[in-house]
Amino acid sequence: MRTTVAIIGAGPAGLLLARLLDEAGIDSVVLESRDRAHVEQRQRVGILEQSTADALRAAGAGARMDREGLPHTGIELRFDRRGHRVDFPSRTGGRSVLVYAQTEVCKDLIALRFRTGGPLLFGARALAVEDADTDRPRVRYHHGGREEVLECSYVAGCDGYWGISRAAVPPALARTYERTWPYAWLGILADVPPSHHELVYARHDRGFALLSMRPPAEGADAPVSRLYLQVPPGTEAASWSDTEIWDELDRRVETDGGRPLERGAITAKAVTPMRSWVHEPMRHGRLFLAGDAAHIVPPTGAKGLNLAVGDVVTLARALITHRDTGDPAGIDAYSADCLRRVWGAEHFSYAMTDLLHRHPDATPFDDRLRRARIDRIATCAAAETDLAEGYTGVPFP
Amino acid sequence: MRTTVAIIGAGPAGLLLARLLDEAGIDSVVLESRDRAHVEQRQRVGILEQSTADALRAAGAGARMDREGLPHTGIELRFDRRGHRVDFPSRTGGRSVLVYAQTEVCKDLIALRFRTGGPLLFGARALAVEDADTDRPRVRYHHGGREEVLECSYVAGCDGYWGISRAAVPPALARTYERTWPYAWLGILADVPPSHHELVYARHDRGFALLSMRPPAEGADAPVSRLYLQVPPGTEAASWSDTEIWDELDRRVETDGGRPLERGAITAKAVTPMRSWVHEPMRHGRLFLAGDAAHIVPPTGAKGLNLAVGDVVTLARALITHRDTGDPAGIDAYSADCLRRVWGAEHFSYAMTDLLHRHPDATPFDDRLRRARIDRIATCAAAETDLAEGYTGVPFP
Repeated sequence: MRTTVAIIGAGPAGLLLARLLDEAGIDSVVLESRDRAHVEQRQRVGILEQSTADALRAAGAGARMDREGLPHTGIELRFDRRGHRVDFPSRTGGRSVLVYAQTEVCKDLIALRFRTGGPLLFGARALAVEDADTDRPRVRYHHGGREEVLECSYVAGCDGYWGISRAAVPPALARTYERTWPYAWLGILADVPPSHHELVYARHDRGFALLSMRPPAEGADAPVSRLYLQVPPGTEAASWSDTEIWDELDRRVETDGGRPLERGAITAKAVTPMRSWVHEPMRHGRLFLAGDAAHIVPPTGAKGLNLAVGDVVTLARALITHRDTGDPAGIDAYSADCLRRVWGAEHFSYAMTDLLHRHPDATPFDDRLRRARIDRIATCAAAETDLAEGYTGVPFP
Repeated sequence: MRTTVAIIGAGPAGLLLARLLDEAGIDSVVLESRDRAHVEQRQRVGILEQSTADALRAAGAGARMDREGLPHTGIELRFDRRGHRVDFPSRTGGRSVLVYAQTEVCKDLIALRFRTGGPLLFGARALAVEDADTDRPRVRYHHGGREEVLECSYVAGCDGYWGISRAAVPPALARTYERTWPYAWLGILADVPPSHHELVYARHDRGFALLSMRPPAEGADAPVSRLYLQVPPGTEAASWSDTEIWDELDRRVETDGGRPLERGAITAKAVTPMRSWVHEPMRHGRLFLAGDAAHIVPPTGAKGLNLAVGDVVTLARALITHRDTGDPAGIDAYSADCLRRVWGAEHFSYAMTDLLHRHPDATPFDDRLRRARIDRIATCAAAETDLAEGYTGVPFP
């Protein structure tokens, strides 16, 4: 088989790239190792930055998102038994975010691809990217019990942290940057409307908690609760009983004069490890890494999906410009352009994570410093604006 | 001897407090263990925030400061071989700073006190504060070969980190917060005009460097250079030759297309350890701690003197209001009011220090994060404003 762009991975990066190329008349083939049901059910964080939502709309993938997604114009920081609301539009010239699960974004993009686009092969496991630094790279993959070769002009490695694309960058040219965090998130889905109408990020001496939500399921009329607790790394989700989870959430988000959370049946319970990680460069010859294949952020601030979208918007533009004008500048600058945005988001995610969690080795001095920083965000327009801009995301260039 | 306010320590905190009380007609006695020459020669950082300069002017101590001090409306951040200027007035609604050495502030306040104020005893070594939690506290001190007692209504502990005032707070009621930094500053005075007209804060892989200055000495017409290098803690100043210091400064502040620093005779060379430290509470009964007696910041950002001024402005206002109206609210709130400002400055100093220095244990990830933060300050108005406001200082309430 031969195509212009071989896309490895049908997560949001690969699927949106495929859609952008479809629209521009550039043919592509998407290879995804898992089956469709799996891709459409992976639970991930679901906060779309303004630019991400705009990019999906521009790609014609915004209809259901705008019907079912929940526009949020602020978040609440909770600390010292009180809350401080950060208003996004007034701090950012009108920007806001949309609560819409990543898995729904994938469903929408898969449906579009099947309706109007090129091939999307599920159960197609990429084995290796070869000759990435030549004009004729190839992807070897396994599909339907046979090993196949996809010849192409470009390869987009959108296959996540565990993917194989990255291995095509010679180790001598690559460098990785990493930080592991001494805590994890225990996340639950609960069948009860959220107790607060916006997301609540709580810093507490016992650890971080996040009150979040998912849009109503089809046929339902209220959002459901998506709730998180900071827990030690390696925690088994099953080791927390439902009652223990609700009790601990209540403790960590309690305010003076506030009421306990409304409780409901817990329908999912899982522990997410936290990691910060970047692979440089993001391009080798005609191979482009995008999304989790090149960078991981901790979930605080929900940057992962948004970074992936920024990468493929940048890549699609570079490929289209090159086809239309012959100018390779966008292709040559792809890695540096993306990495500038990526490191900005890595810093934002780091700062949000560090500010809101209880570090097991934190000294009393460290705790006081973090409280001082939250106080400043709550009292100083510039500090609050810095956070609001980071949260709603910088516009894609 | 009896007075209303016993002031222990004739640094900027004690001297300005004495002056503010003199002006309000509240009598005080200042006890200083060292001699006048020593107090007038101690070298410290010399950046006066807008509010500090305003407070000194309002106290009638601004004449020589305004004649000889150097108004600075910005600083330069230098990194990746380039510079980024932070403009203060445009980011802060017109605020700026004044370069004027702390030792000159002390000279001006000592002269004022001797001309118009109450007693200021040099060589008077405070031994203990007694009965701080009663209506009649006392300070025992040693002066002229004899032990004396100063009876008073209030005690202001302005005697710095090594002072004795703090010991009058019962250990069970006190808590200290501390961070030591794994580096120190090697500082020099050099008899050569500054190579740059504003302060330059340089982040470099070899460590931090600061190009600063002192106003011209009397009779001279150009400022002199005050320069700093990050060095390992415990470094002996004498172990750095003059040539090594200049060579290292050149390396760390180099820009593309820039010229080496102009060199001159080094007239002073000393190593400053770096520490962050806070003592809570800042009041016990009728004892008030102010300045370094209650908190230390690392020198990055030059907050020490400014915090001391904020403390005694707050204290003088509380004492004057109490005398005039009988309302003790300001006295009761002294510790909490000051600590809010102190922790804000501790965070600012921490963030500036951490951002600009090379931490010996920093991972490549940490280094990239810091560069991302500097990039954000250089490209995002909100982040730059946050820094400019912190540097020029929040207005005293």
